[in-house]
Amino acid sequence: MVHVFDRAVAGSVRVGTVDVSRWEQYALGELMPFQAMWYSVPPGSKSPQDRHPEVELSVVLTGSATVEAGGAVVEVPAGSSFLLPADEAHVVHNRSATESLVVFSAYWLPGGAS
Amino acid sequence: MVHVFDRAVAGSVRVGTVDVSRWEQYALGELMPFQAMWYSVPPGSKSPQDRHPEVELSVVLTGSATVEAGGAVVEVPAGSSFLLPADEAHVVHNRSATESLVVFSAYWLPGGAS
Repeated sequence: MVHVFDRAVAGSVRVGTVDVSRWEQYALGELMPFQAMWYSVPPGSKSPQDRHPEVELSVVLTGSATVEAGGAVVEVPAGSSFLLPADEAHVVHNRSATESLVVFSAYWLPGGAS
Repeated sequence: MVHVFDRAVAGSVRVGTVDVSRWEQYALGELMPFQAMWYSVPPGSKSPQDRHPEVELSVVLTGSATVEAGGAVVEVPAGSSFLLPADEAHVVHNRSATESLVVFSAYWLPGGAS
């Protein structure tokens, strides 16, 4: 059976200006070897600085992410992905004046634990 | 250090009419607890039927996926996701006449192996 996850109707919480829909709401248990979320950053805004022990793989769905991490700033357009190592402080900026930035992220503790 | 994966310059192979860019090309080793790929299905086309022991989580990046699996057909628009259980035969259709369907998929063997 295919399970569909529709972001449009997902529950979400606000973190600063960022809207976060965590997949814990789907109660998938041990089915996936990672946690997941969608988040959106409004035009001209940015995420609060975040740092966590999980490795994080992000896929940009809409807009373009300006990712500030490890002393570098990289631009990641829709359709592309970025991988943040464990414990890397990061801020994700949406420098567009008009378009929301929407990202899907998977994250997991390195070394096989999840 | 942030690692960026740019689909536009990724190496790809053709499977039927489908263009597949597997992330093995990035040689990430054990960094991720899953394998990953992008694939695109041209307008009016579909993937060959596929069936594999891995669970597969897909995120629709562009276009809309019509997913045929387990006797059901579900529509998954851009920004949404679908999860295929292990060993579920599936075909992914792009019923648009004009727009490519682009999907990011993560896949892994169930039960903790990867």
